[in-house]
Amino acid sequence: MDISKYFTKSELVPAVVQEQGSGEILMLAYMNAESLQKTLETGQTWFYSRSRQELWNKGATSGHVQAVVSITPDCDDDALLVRVVQTGPACHTGNKTCFYREGGVYAAAEGMPKGDL
Amino acid sequence: MDISKYFTKSELVPAVVQEQGSGEILMLAYMNAESLQKTLETGQTWFYSRSRQELWNKGATSGHVQAVVSITPDCDDDALLVRVVQTGPACHTGNKTCFYREGGVYAAAEGMPKGDL
Repeated sequence: MDISKYFTKSELVPAVVQEQGSGEILMLAYMNAESLQKTLETGQTWFYSRSRQELWNKGATSGHVQAVVSITPDCDDDALLVRVVQTGPACHTGNKTCFYREGGVYAAAEGMPKGDL
Repeated sequence: MDISKYFTKSELVPAVVQEQGSGEILMLAYMNAESLQKTLETGQTWFYSRSRQELWNKGATSGHVQAVVSITPDCDDDALLVRVVQTGPACHTGNKTCFYREGGVYAAAEGMPKGDL
């Protein structure tokens, strides 16, 4: 399979990780071609760390791995939706999802932006 | 509210747009500080187009606007989860979501990667 088309605009593609079943968004990370290839080969998520400039296998140290159910490109092939079965919490803070500060920037129900969290 | 902390690593932050209720991921786009500010002020999504290098109000021409329910930052403030009520299809192709090619890169249920779509 040719995966190069996902890396024509940029060497990195944002990957939205969604929990299979619940539909919860667990995290967003970046893949380069090598990490996508490793993800396809292993069935677990591999990403590229922009700060450390290296590949990382999610859960390699914590044990909180993600088993890949499906990977879906968006309409113009520059973002990926990765559905997974998550072992343990996805976030390094111990929260289930990295987006645990619900409405932390804005929550319409309250009629106005919330303060910083 | 100080939104500058979302733009310290990069001038652009990826925004995952999720439909309120269904939990479906509709699209991924980028916000700069100005587009996030406009989103907060108007209650509709504004993004920054990397290709056109300009702000765009989602649905301004199609009428398929997104009313913002909440905006949640991730654990390290470099990604945003935007929950919306979507009018019409989110994708310019006419599909409900930009991620309409289900399992287009990989689908574990079939035991091996699918071909290109």
